[in-house]
Amino acid sequence: MDYREVLEAVRDGRLSVDDAMGNLSRLDVEDLGFARIDHHRSLRKGFPEVVYCEGKTPEQSAEILIRLAQSGSGPVLGTRAQPKVFELVKDAVPDMEYDAPAKAVYLKRQAAPPVGHVLVLSAGTSDLPVAQEAVITAQLMGARVEHLCDVGVAGLHRLLGHLDEIYEARVLIVVAGMEGALASVVGGLVDKPVIAVPTSVGYGSHFGGLAPLLSMLNSCSSGVGVVNIDNGFGAGYLAALINRL
Amino acid sequence: MDYREVLEAVRDGRLSVDDAMGNLSRLDVEDLGFARIDHHRSLRKGFPEVVYCEGKTPEQSAEILIRLAQSGSGPVLGTRAQPKVFELVKDAVPDMEYDAPAKAVYLKRQAAPPVGHVLVLSAGTSDLPVAQEAVITAQLMGARVEHLCDVGVAGLHRLLGHLDEIYEARVLIVVAGMEGALASVVGGLVDKPVIAVPTSVGYGSHFGGLAPLLSMLNSCSSGVGVVNIDNGFGAGYLAALINRL
Amino acid sequence: MDYREVLEAVRDGRLSVDDAMGNLSRLDVEDLGFARIDHHRSLRKGFPEVVYCEGKTPEQSAEILIRLAQSGSGPVLGTRAQPKVFELVKDAVPDMEYDAPAKAVYLKRQAAPPVGHVLVLSAGTSDLPVAQEAVITAQLMGARVEHLCDVGVAGLHRLLGHLDEIYEARVLIVVAGMEGALASVVGGLVDKPVIAVPTSVGYGSHFGGLAPLLSMLNSCSSGVGVVNIDNGFGAGYLAALINRL
Amino acid sequence: MDYREVLEAVRDGRLSVDDAMGNLSRLDVEDLGFARIDHHRSLRKGFPEVVYCEGKTPEQSAEILIRLAQSGSGPVLGTRAQPKVFELVKDAVPDMEYDAPAKAVYLKRQAAPPVGHVLVLSAGTSDLPVAQEAVITAQLMGARVEHLCDVGVAGLHRLLGHLDEIYEARVLIVVAGMEGALASVVGGLVDKPVIAVPTSVGYGSHFGGLAPLLSMLNSCSSGVGVVNIDNGFGAGYLAALINRL
Amino acid sequence: MDYREVLEAVRDGRLSVDDAMGNLSRLDVEDLGFARIDHHRSLRKGFPEVVYCEGKTPEQSAEILIRLAQSGSGPVLGTRAQPKVFELVKDAVPDMEYDAPAKAVYLKRQAAPPVGHVLVLSAGTSDLPVAQEAVITAQLMGARVEHLCDVGVAGLHRLLGHLDEIYEARVLIVVAGMEGALASVVGGLVDKPVIAVPTSVGYGSHFGGLAPLLSMLNSCSSGVGVVNIDNGFGAGYLAALINRL
Amino acid sequence: MDYREVLEAVRDGRLSVDDAMGNLSRLDVEDLGFARIDHHRSLRKGFPEVVYCEGKTPEQSAEILIRLAQSGSGPVLGTRAQPKVFELVKDAVPDMEYDAPAKAVYLKRQAAPPVGHVLVLSAGTSDLPVAQEAVITAQLMGARVEHLCDVGVAGLHRLLGHLDEIYEARVLIVVAGMEGALASVVGGLVDKPVIAVPTSVGYGSHFGGLAPLLSMLNSCSSGVGVVNIDNGFGAGYLAALINRL
Amino acid sequence: MDYREVLEAVRDGRLSVDDAMGNLSRLDVEDLGFARIDHHRSLRKGFPEVVYCEGKTPEQSAEILIRLAQSGSGPVLGTRAQPKVFELVKDAVPDMEYDAPAKAVYLKRQAAPPVGHVLVLSAGTSDLPVAQEAVITAQLMGARVEHLCDVGVAGLHRLLGHLDEIYEARVLIVVAGMEGALASVVGGLVDKPVIAVPTSVGYGSHFGGLAPLLSMLNSCSSGVGVVNIDNGFGAGYLAALINRL
Amino acid sequence: MDYREVLEAVRDGRLSVDDAMGNLSRLDVEDLGFARIDHHRSLRKGFPEVVYCEGKTPEQSAEILIRLAQSGSGPVLGTRAQPKVFELVKDAVPDMEYDAPAKAVYLKRQAAPPVGHVLVLSAGTSDLPVAQEAVITAQLMGARVEHLCDVGVAGLHRLLGHLDEIYEARVLIVVAGMEGALASVVGGLVDKPVIAVPTSVGYGSHFGGLAPLLSMLNSCSSGVGVVNIDNGFGAGYLAALINRL
Repeated sequence: MDYREVLEAVRDGRLSVDDAMGNLSRLDVEDLGFARIDHHRSLRKGFPEVVYCEGKTPEQSAEILIRLAQSGSGPVLGTRAQPKVFELVKDAVPDMEYDAPAKAVYLKRQAAPPVGHVLVLSAGTSDLPVAQEAVITAQLMGARVEHLCDVGVAGLHRLLGHLDEIYEARVLIVVAGMEGALASVVGGLVDKPVIAVPTSVGYGSHFGGLAPLLSMLNSCSSGVGVVNIDNGFGAGYLAALINRL
Repeated sequence: MDYREVLEAVRDGRLSVDDAMGNLSRLDVEDLGFARIDHHRSLRKGFPEVVYCEGKTPEQSAEILIRLAQSGSGPVLGTRAQPKVFELVKDAVPDMEYDAPAKAVYLKRQAAPPVGHVLVLSAGTSDLPVAQEAVITAQLMGARVEHLCDVGVAGLHRLLGHLDEIYEARVLIVVAGMEGALASVVGGLVDKPVIAVPTSVGYGSHFGGLAPLLSMLNSCSSGVGVVNIDNGFGAGYLAALINRL
Repeated sequence: MDYREVLEAVRDGRLSVDDAMGNLSRLDVEDLGFARIDHHRSLRKGFPEVVYCEGKTPEQSAEILIRLAQSGSGPVLGTRAQPKVFELVKDAVPDMEYDAPAKAVYLKRQAAPPVGHVLVLSAGTSDLPVAQEAVITAQLMGARVEHLCDVGVAGLHRLLGHLDEIYEARVLIVVAGMEGALASVVGGLVDKPVIAVPTSVGYGSHFGGLAPLLSMLNSCSSGVGVVNIDNGFGAGYLAALINRL
Repeated sequence: MDYREVLEAVRDGRLSVDDAMGNLSRLDVEDLGFARIDHHRSLRKGFPEVVYCEGKTPEQSAEILIRLAQSGSGPVLGTRAQPKVFELVKDAVPDMEYDAPAKAVYLKRQAAPPVGHVLVLSAGTSDLPVAQEAVITAQLMGARVEHLCDVGVAGLHRLLGHLDEIYEARVLIVVAGMEGALASVVGGLVDKPVIAVPTSVGYGSHFGGLAPLLSMLNSCSSGVGVVNIDNGFGAGYLAALINRL
Repeated sequence: MDYREVLEAVRDGRLSVDDAMGNLSRLDVEDLGFARIDHHRSLRKGFPEVVYCEGKTPEQSAEILIRLAQSGSGPVLGTRAQPKVFELVKDAVPDMEYDAPAKAVYLKRQAAPPVGHVLVLSAGTSDLPVAQEAVITAQLMGARVEHLCDVGVAGLHRLLGHLDEIYEARVLIVVAGMEGALASVVGGLVDKPVIAVPTSVGYGSHFGGLAPLLSMLNSCSSGVGVVNIDNGFGAGYLAALINRL
Repeated sequence: MDYREVLEAVRDGRLSVDDAMGNLSRLDVEDLGFARIDHHRSLRKGFPEVVYCEGKTPEQSAEILIRLAQSGSGPVLGTRAQPKVFELVKDAVPDMEYDAPAKAVYLKRQAAPPVGHVLVLSAGTSDLPVAQEAVITAQLMGARVEHLCDVGVAGLHRLLGHLDEIYEARVLIVVAGMEGALASVVGGLVDKPVIAVPTSVGYGSHFGGLAPLLSMLNSCSSGVGVVNIDNGFGAGYLAALINRL
Repeated sequence: MDYREVLEAVRDGRLSVDDAMGNLSRLDVEDLGFARIDHHRSLRKGFPEVVYCEGKTPEQSAEILIRLAQSGSGPVLGTRAQPKVFELVKDAVPDMEYDAPAKAVYLKRQAAPPVGHVLVLSAGTSDLPVAQEAVITAQLMGARVEHLCDVGVAGLHRLLGHLDEIYEARVLIVVAGMEGALASVVGGLVDKPVIAVPTSVGYGSHFGGLAPLLSMLNSCSSGVGVVNIDNGFGAGYLAALINRL
Repeated sequence: MDYREVLEAVRDGRLSVDDAMGNLSRLDVEDLGFARIDHHRSLRKGFPEVVYCEGKTPEQSAEILIRLAQSGSGPVLGTRAQPKVFELVKDAVPDMEYDAPAKAVYLKRQAAPPVGHVLVLSAGTSDLPVAQEAVITAQLMGARVEHLCDVGVAGLHRLLGHLDEIYEARVLIVVAGMEGALASVVGGLVDKPVIAVPTSVGYGSHFGGLAPLLSMLNSCSSGVGVVNIDNGFGAGYLAALINRL
């Protein structure tokens, strides 16, 4: 029973005001005991609930993913999933796929052709898993995605050799570890939104991604929004939201 | 020989003032060589000493737990106990139980029915072990405890669908990782004490729980007290103390 | 028009379901342009909205405080208020009082005698302003409050000389800067909830209160909840909520 | 002489290859001695260079602002400008305006009506200056902007009372200090991009905005991009870029 | 009535056991309202209570210092005292002295000649105030103190030119800002205890003394104990305790 | 087609201005799919691209190293390479060598005799792997390198016993963990550039190298430049650049 | 050839001034290739060089320890040594002993009876390894050492029951994790030097020992010197230096 | 009496070995009471002692500067000097100059024409004072210095328009606040040493220069050495040392 149904029941005299007071804020939530699945999210957010698998047992992750795949008709995504999760899922949902570097379990299902143009730029080979997570996420949400890898600022000409592609993008995602300078350089070149993803690629005073995180937050270029360290999913999600405006 | 006995011995001339000076502050402490067990704590704090098993060998933990179980008649609790500890304990104390996710070894023994109403709210499935530690602790201390899981703020309606239970609680415990916003939202809804437990669930700039810890300490809602990251035990203990007032 | 009124209007046919959909979540909020005053908070939280004056102009703070004083019948509190705020308020609300060290502007108005027993313990003379903010807050919320100052652990006998008062309290607030060890010592003595307030009193590696904050969060004594550095208000508020259970 | 002109001169034999090698990468930059003004930026980024006035002398800031106003026909913006800067500018550029709380000096000049819909939500009165900087920036870049203030999560109904406006926005900016939970709550309600701005409003373990910054970066809601602490300008800029897609 | 007196009264039948239970832990503490003066400290710690004046009003500091000077016969010390404190004290206690750079108010009064040999080494001229606080403290506690200033490691020969004095000392205090390397160098030269005092002299990544603090805590030389940043008093106190063994 | 070729083609009429506009910034980059190899780097930077193997799969690292070895004639270096990388490389490139402690895979190939004089000083045995990485890097870049190990400041005479060698060096690299004081001591002795490398050798408040990093950045000796924690490669590279001036 | 021998050779005409210039600062250092052994240290510091085994290979550690044992007649100590080190050493030096929790390899050899009185107090069972390292170190340096374990402040009576032993000590070492309050409590009780050792025992906001480290550095009790986290060796060394004054 | 003189006196029988032992390590140091001036530094380091004026009284700074100017014939430099210092110095040393933004008091006196080529690149107008300190320092040490300001990466063409000058430099200094990306971009372009100076220009998560400091330490470009935040002096000094090789 949703908001409107409650109101209609009250209007029609089928529900007293007192009972309505109690029911009013409740929405349809399926309860698995250890997790509540929110099937209405696809209406509210335009995308099914994504399962963050870290900290859950593989069995818990698999059960949620299977339930989501079976109860809906849209794409499904599990992030930071160990291979074990995929093994537990693939028989129940044969179309489910797994990207090992990105640790993403996903089910593509939308019919519509991809739209817009999201360009993912990654600085080094070690940044690929995070970039790949962003690519998969944005694709699942309906975006047309391109990916340019290994275009870090240590060899500026590698980046500048792709100016055309850069200028054509509608939204850009920059994935970079080390000092994360790529976000500022790209941000200075384009007049489109740039989503910056710091990665934990580095060592010593990198402090697990703190260096590029601070670098990106303090970018001297305008138009740069930042997501958490290694959060390729978050960047892909935000870029796809922007892309479909 | 306790304080009163020392004083009585002095009054009765059985103890000289000089000897009394030496004995005066001593209380009954059982010495295992590597640990001193404080059997008087149950009088002083209303609860037996809890064994923090991390950093102790399983053998040390087990010996302390067994001694506590055999020497007293109240409940016993070992936190952060590896399965090995439980294996070493269960034969000597058959009623001992083990909660694997919460890593808690415990012995229930109180006769009185649970009192009051402690409500534990946890944000995500990954926060369950910490929440469960809080539940067990508060129960062992005599509280009636309920637990609502997976009510994080990303789907606010899941939380708002439980307003009745929330308004009925006497004390609330909020367990949340990520950004820990649940504590502020709950704190803004109720006029009861809220104990907030940040968890280490997160990554990158989460810094092992620093993000929700700072979030909870800076809550814009009043009436929120915070315990250490992942300290489900501390929250359950404090909530039970409050609950039995 | 509150929730019930909306429902009744729908029931009575005075409001269509569609219109109700729009109005439903709205509560009575007074809009000053730069702030929304929430007059219903006293119903919801048992206490009027408290005004955090830092970051507001004295004129803004004063206007909110006057409006709150004039529109309600309960106590009013402005924290971290410069003397200028009090000057702007005192003519419009003659009963308003000001505590200069605690920087608190407040209006006492409740008729009922104070209840329970909140004991505030502060470690040093420099911690007094924070302790005083806690005292005022808890008193405004109806608690009977006592305050023991200068009982830091460097002279343990000063604390131990007050064991009777400590054992009698229903809730304890411990205010301490430097290393904040007082919270652990008090927490080890009592079987009542302890609210610990780290203060910014210290220098060097104190890092503005970080030292006692971490100390209190890591207390080896159970039953200790922590609030933000220098947050005497938060401690007084939480203690009063607990005290009136 | 720009890129094309160099190429044409080479084609026409007016410039040798060697000379072209030297000139090739140079663009039209006006040099004031202490700053280089980039008049081509408006072509490249769709917006004139913004002057960050902190760390510059008022005289330096004023000179750059005047030069930008006189040489172009688009809007001009100086952020973090002391009143002194405005005094030095207003005679030379009579249409220049100043917003004192936001410390913004600006010149509106675009003819086209504002487009799209950027909604700025701010948590408390103390967050207003930062929110106002975001509003001005987005407006100067051509966006239609609305602002809802004082809708922090401590009184959730204040926020939920504006769900219609929230659902209508194309892009949302959330400005919040303290623990910054508003970003997660808003992010969980909408399926539009959310730009989160942590503010330095808070004290103690707030560490100058670190608490809401980490909170927002770790938001459990998807679709949230973060800018630097107190960076209302950056949020407004990014939101306007997105809004005009 | 002290411990012994309580016991003697019980022995002699002048005090009941119950009354003794109440009195036992109490020591003679003078109460000024905002501070408790501990006149027995000189018995217990061999030194009167030292007044940390920061965070107290000058009037509070002065009143405590005067009371200490008038009630005892030993030395008195107020640290981090603004000149105002000295002005308020000097008439009431004419022998009181003031060291402006060290911000120390003090009263020398011991008859016995200084003993032992404490050597204070300071790295740069900017470290002098902290070093001077150490000198005064150790002298007041009866130590013979020498001070070598400006012997930082940037000019190693300045230090090595004083090897004789260094080898003669019984206890050494090393006061250094910047990177604090002096502590390690001195610690590697002597077989006597070294008390290291990091100072806040530095900028940028010095972080208010964090750099030399960490440096000294991680000294590769053995025999080095560290006190808080700028804590000349603590170093002088500890050195004097060691010196008189 | 490089810059000059583009210009010449335009001059000769073989390329239109419009086509040249598109091609202009592109340089010769070989694309492996997961990495772009920059063969022109040896012209631009005087040294082939170095492969940072951490975060890459051994297969990826090996493929890049082999391609670099086969396509050029200069030295090749892979840093932070697990033994697996070397195993995958050594058959394809028989002259490739591996230094296990330094985790460096490298191929020496320059004909010219080493020039200049780079002196590497390391504080303790545990610092050897980092020092060795610096030695190998500088040697590959053509420098004559000497290495003095175990000359930490805890035994100053070990360092001072090598003053002649120290004074003879053209550039010095100081590798030190713990508190990193060696950099300041060496910096105070010489009038040559000193490159300081903090290492992660230490524990507790060392925070993975933060202590010597801050120490070296705050050195009271002038003429010291710092590289990242454990970055022996970076120090060797920078020293070799300086050495060949 | 030591300093005096150089001077005598110059006086006797056996060495020219120029040659002496070269030799002067050199001391007898045995070179193992990867480490320089400093046999003169026992003269200079009263104790042989201690081997910090972390970061060295077991083979390197063993070789240094054997060489030290064979070339001198005093005690030898290897800290943080894995069992493998002991296995490699015990055949060559049959009297070598190993303490597994403390990870200390050591050789007792002094004839003189232990002197003075060092008292080690440790807060919890998990702190034992660090305390034991302190005990072994101080004993090897000739001190009479006692150890009281499990006397943390959560049960204050356990500590106060040992006041006699506490008052009798000449130097005290306090080993504590969690919040480290024990150091302040002990420091407030005695008039002897206290060496405080924070341990890494704790979790969450303990940050690997940062909490007790800051706590101890900010102790409100005077006379407390602090060593690095888990540095039982450093505390035992410093205490022994003080103890033999 | 220096080393050689001591040795000669021993050789000639004018000094006994015992007396020589005492005198040997002493060098000529002038003692002002609060500072030791090291006139031999110019021989040892090729540059007179530089006076760091922060933390010294203007009188102390002035006295040291005057003494240095009067006793030597080389250049003199006082950094971080308030105008008051210059006022106190200029009469006694009429040739002394003052650069107000850089807060540098200096005396040029070398005859030889400047050599080499140090290029200082600064990112924004707010970075000018730090850049200017670097320029002055390197010039005083004999280097030919050029300065390009306002070439930050937000407008990459401003930097790329100066490639010729960049390629010509022998040593480069990069001064940048915000995220400090300029160092990586420049480091990727040249094959010369780059000295990177992070500045405190920024706000919020800039943390006083921490963001560009970490950025520069983690630069993906090789050949970059870093100095402390705002340490223009250190960069100029190091660059000049390198430049004159």
